[in-house]
Amino acid sequence: MPSSHWTTWAWILLLPGCAMGWPKQSSSARSDIRDCTTSPPFLPPMVTDTSAQLNALRQRMQFYNISAYIIPATDAHMSEYIAERDARLAWISGFTGSAGTGVVTTKKAVLWTDSRYWTQAERQMDCNWELQKTIWTDTIGEWLLQEIPAGENIGLDPFLFSIDLWNSYARVLQGSRRTLVPIEDNLVDLVWGTQRPPLPTSKIYLLPETFTGSTWQEKVSGIRRQMEQHYRSPTAVLLSALEETAWLFNLRGDDISYNPVFYSYALLTTSDISLFVDSSRLSTEALQSLRAQCPGPLCVQVEEYDQVRARVQAYAQGDVRVWIGTEYTTYGLYGVIPQDKLVESSYSPVMMTKAVKNAKEQALLRVAHVRDAVAVIQYLLWLEKNVPKGSVDEFSGARYVDKLRREKEHCRGTSFETISASGLNAALAHYSPSNISSRKLSVDEMYLSDSGGQYLDGTTDITRTVHWGEPTPFQKEAYTRVLMGNIDLARLVFPSETSGRVVEAFARRALWEVGLNYGHGTGHGIGNFLSVHEWPVGFQSNNVPLVKGMFTSIEPGYYQEGEFGIRIEDVALVVEAQTKHGAGEKAYLTFEVVSLVPYDRNLIDISFLSEHQIQYLNTYYETIRQRVGPELQRQQLEEEYEWLRRNTQPFSRGTLVAASLGTLAITSLVSALLPDRQA
Amino acid sequence: MPSSHWTTWAWILLLPGCAMGWPKQSSSARSDIRDCTTSPPFLPPMVTDTSAQLNALRQRMQFYNISAYIIPATDAHMSEYIAERDARLAWISGFTGSAGTGVVTTKKAVLWTDSRYWTQAERQMDCNWELQKTIWTDTIGEWLLQEIPAGENIGLDPFLFSIDLWNSYARVLQGSRRTLVPIEDNLVDLVWGTQRPPLPTSKIYLLPETFTGSTWQEKVSGIRRQMEQHYRSPTAVLLSALEETAWLFNLRGDDISYNPVFYSYALLTTSDISLFVDSSRLSTEALQSLRAQCPGPLCVQVEEYDQVRARVQAYAQGDVRVWIGTEYTTYGLYGVIPQDKLVESSYSPVMMTKAVKNAKEQALLRVAHVRDAVAVIQYLLWLEKNVPKGSVDEFSGARYVDKLRREKEHCRGTSFETISASGLNAALAHYSPSNISSRKLSVDEMYLSDSGGQYLDGTTDITRTVHWGEPTPFQKEAYTRVLMGNIDLARLVFPSETSGRVVEAFARRALWEVGLNYGHGTGHGIGNFLSVHEWPVGFQSNNVPLVKGMFTSIEPGYYQEGEFGIRIEDVALVVEAQTKHGAGEKAYLTFEVVSLVPYDRNLIDISFLSEHQIQYLNTYYETIRQRVGPELQRQQLEEEYEWLRRNTQPFSRGTLVAASLGTLAITSLVSALLPDRQA
Repeated sequence: MPSSHWTTWAWILLLPGCAMGWPKQSSSARSDIRDCTTSPPFLPPMVTDTSAQLNALRQRMQFYNISAYIIPATDAHMSEYIAERDARLAWISGFTGSAGTGVVTTKKAVLWTDSRYWTQAERQMDCNWELQKTIWTDTIGEWLLQEIPAGENIGLDPFLFSIDLWNSYARVLQGSRRTLVPIEDNLVDLVWGTQRPPLPTSKIYLLPETFTGSTWQEKVSGIRRQMEQHYRSPTAVLLSALEETAWLFNLRGDDISYNPVFYSYALLTTSDISLFVDSSRLSTEALQSLRAQCPGPLCVQVEEYDQVRARVQAYAQGDVRVWIGTEYTTYGLYGVIPQDKLVESSYSPVMMTKAVKNAKEQALLRVAHVRDAVAVIQYLLWLEKNVPKGSVDEFSGARYVDKLRREKEHCRGTSFETISASGLNAALAHYSPSNISSRKLSVDEMYLSDSGGQYLDGTTDITRTVHWGEPTPFQKEAYTRVLMGNIDLARLVFPSETSGRVVEAFARRALWEVGLNYGHGTGHGIGNFLSVHEWPVGFQSNNVPLVKGMFTSIEPGYYQEGEFGIRIEDVALVVEAQTKHGAGEKAYLTFEVVSLVPYDRNLIDISFLSEHQIQYLNTYYETIRQRVGPELQRQQLEEEYEWLRRNTQPFSRGTLVAASLGTLAITSLVSALLPDRQA
Repeated sequence: MPSSHWTTWAWILLLPGCAMGWPKQSSSARSDIRDCTTSPPFLPPMVTDTSAQLNALRQRMQFYNISAYIIPATDAHMSEYIAERDARLAWISGFTGSAGTGVVTTKKAVLWTDSRYWTQAERQMDCNWELQKTIWTDTIGEWLLQEIPAGENIGLDPFLFSIDLWNSYARVLQGSRRTLVPIEDNLVDLVWGTQRPPLPTSKIYLLPETFTGSTWQEKVSGIRRQMEQHYRSPTAVLLSALEETAWLFNLRGDDISYNPVFYSYALLTTSDISLFVDSSRLSTEALQSLRAQCPGPLCVQVEEYDQVRARVQAYAQGDVRVWIGTEYTTYGLYGVIPQDKLVESSYSPVMMTKAVKNAKEQALLRVAHVRDAVAVIQYLLWLEKNVPKGSVDEFSGARYVDKLRREKEHCRGTSFETISASGLNAALAHYSPSNISSRKLSVDEMYLSDSGGQYLDGTTDITRTVHWGEPTPFQKEAYTRVLMGNIDLARLVFPSETSGRVVEAFARRALWEVGLNYGHGTGHGIGNFLSVHEWPVGFQSNNVPLVKGMFTSIEPGYYQEGEFGIRIEDVALVVEAQTKHGAGEKAYLTFEVVSLVPYDRNLIDISFLSEHQIQYLNTYYETIRQRVGPELQRQQLEEEYEWLRRNTQPFSRGTLVAASLGTLAITSLVSALLPDRQA
């Protein structure tokens, strides 16, 4: 699915042509969104009254002498998905979208969010809240400059802002005599009080060795080697992102939906290892694993979660240098380390190492994708049979594919909330159906399914768009051009360490050519039983260069407002390419697609495809047959096997010739020759 | 020609696959480069002894209590090309390349430069100087950390470092207890003394209205409008780059070779305009133009060049906000403006406005390119006739094409030192021949000519690579793939405000596919009778997004070390594209190539080209015929006209069919039908 990390969506709004690819909200009278212009205002039923919590918050603000309070949508670990107890913005505003920033002043309450969420915000917020249709820090800062007089203070919880984000605010306000005040007590939490969901108590468990790429001791040793090799010789690495600790120690938890992580920090020094976590939650096996080599440099000291700041502060008193990733470390932790003891990079060495999967991790992810393909193929066949009967809606479809996945070996649930969108709903890229509002699937509409699973051996994410009836020529052209983009990027050969940002336009070229585009990123990294959006891999400006062993999604799309939406998403592994002239030189790379589900033939207009694209498609289909076919047979899914055979037929040479030449040219050529022959 | 701005070359070394595309220096014994391992060291004849100046510099360093002194290759305006009096690095080290950084410590003298210049550095430097083969600020900083003990000082001239570059050094040294000390007296200048070339005295002249896009008053009013619209309401804009003042006031000078600019600064406030320049050098017309509307807000106060710092400092005492471009403003000027009075952007509004040519500027540049094409066509024909006679060498060729340009209307010289490189010399992308060493042109070798002119109406820059005999299949393939890259980028359709960085890989794809690449940027902006490398337009990460009205070169290449070099360079205008489905929506853009010289048919292997590429080529050739043909006839260059007709013949349909299908496929198809027909 398209990534929705905050760093992603800032970029979305930058994207040229975004306004076209992205559905705009019509302002016509609707019963499902609020109307604050009438008296009394019209509020849809889902809206909650936020007056009480806003009043209480403003009293706290007065106490702290601040004129504005900024409330982000993330947690202390800069997580994309957050637990209920961290959903402060949702609690104070009613808005539950994953990206947004709230600002409460003495008189106003304003939410900034991106285009995906404008409608949702108007559905969920009452008229205490104003909606601002952008997500740029700069525009929030400019708004603050207008609203807050010089000499006054703006409050923030320093543990909810990364250093980079904090600095962005500081830059806009610089020299303006408005002061950013870090307030360590979170004011929303103070108001939320006992109503705030408690800390999780579920077990944190050890991932069996079968499913890990290396032991945690090997991983720790590797990170320590990187510390030694760094020119500033850091004496410690501080880990703040939840994926970092989960990956490093081969532990998993379920503190956050869809993401098998747990609240924690770690401080890894040259001689010690501290894991900050609620120790009572560690399973016996987990604790044994962490303590197996105690005492010694590979002994993990388990310390309480909320002790991290004091511990880092104490550590930083010594003759030390602490290596941090500025994208994931909060200003609150950063602030306790003296400037001259900081070693900064955008991402920590753990984040960077995790991004490159070793041979075993690659093998695990590949296998998970075969299993996942079976579920998706079962679902596509089921849809083919049931949609014409009129018995499937978006919600029941989503539930069905989720069920198919859950039945698979090693499955631990879905990797995100399944997107199941029919007709015009698919034009909203992050639409998820609910039990209450769910559109019936029909042979007269396109249908988009974006779903993924969490398996012990890998995380998956795949989107297929289908049509069971007669698509319009424009729908076929749009689908085919999205597919061309997917293929052009997937088959690209490029030098090692090329930045994804530099090559992602290959996924757009076929659309651009006719004035079409899409308004989201082209792909994101993915974990081994970790996050479905795993940074810092992907195709955006703040992603790191592509190297062998990285996994990324490739997911161009096209969205026609009020009509339909298309996305074709595969997960691909970065592999070495064999080139004609590059032998013996620096490595060239390409992608190996590991998602193994054929595209909808009904939507492909073969005449748009080049010979190279068709060759690529046929080779990919052959791979699907080879890898998924035996698994379907093994599971005795005969009908699915036949479906697979049917849907992976190679595109025929006749079609190929016409397509690559341009139909007219070859037709004239052949007819110039044929008459005599037939005469 | 490939740009060599410092911001460019930092990127070169980043480029994946760079090592392949770029010629490496063999270390075998050669008589033209130094050998510091022998005793006494072997020094080629061009080397000058730098012992005296280094001793003198070290004495000054002692006086200022610094352990290292950093010497950049630029001037106080961050110019790419500099005047002799600013060639401090060349004077102290012997190395005359345009990109490099010198560091002198009490014991060592080290030069950092990029791969283009490694051989040149070994030819020009004596053994006092060590060569470091990188140009990264970070590696210079790391070296300083190793060489300079904690507690000691590193000196710099604050007027020779942009804010951004200064901050890069500061970041690396942060917390290391090595202090960066700004020393306002330039220590090299103190040592250079009276031997340093004097300030220029030549006239600064007014560019006639025929050759300007707008009056300077219109330009000033436009900039003031941007100041009003800026959310921080800057009260002044400070201009430091020489192109900025030249463009804004429609003035030109000849202080720097190839660049018609003059030493100056400007401070443009909401009510006043100050131009800091040696007033005695202004021509009568220039002075009249500047003073025509005095007194008043469009009256230019001429102040002395060296008063700029004091004036900015005095201005910054008031209730003001000064807008600066951080890429071109030096740390020395920046330092006198209080932090809270600074409005920073990467480039000043003048730099940004200049980058987008208005209709008249576009028309002027187009016309200059027709004139320039005539010169290049004359040259190519002359080569065709004279190379087989063995009467042309690189140097005489360069002189001849320069002469052809100078004879053209409105020509004021060449826009850079002509690159004229035969055989293996062309593998050095910035090779220029000299009177002393110049290779004879031969029908057995490829030849690369990269040249451009300064015309009153525009600056040009074009590269053609040719072969008059029998190129090898690999040479043809490499040339054709470079051409494919040129075409693929030139014909790309993309949304307005797409960053050049995002699309430049289209110029590389055809090479990447077979494991080839090139190690320089893909293009750079170009001025109207200004710089041949005009920032901030281009395809690199620090270039600004592409919008309608920008001009950029498109110049992929391929360099085979020790054998040959290929580059195909055109200048192109960013224009609106007509798209099938994009009508009425946000603009899509494409390129209109304004360089009008056909490519070498002898080097094109048509079987590699797609149908679309061939169509593009034929359309481009038709444009060349239409626009250059009449001009050749008008000048009665009949032989050149015939050459043009011959070299712009459309590629035939027969060739096309075979090429787009892959020769084998169509051959089989046709032969499957033909036998019966012929029977």
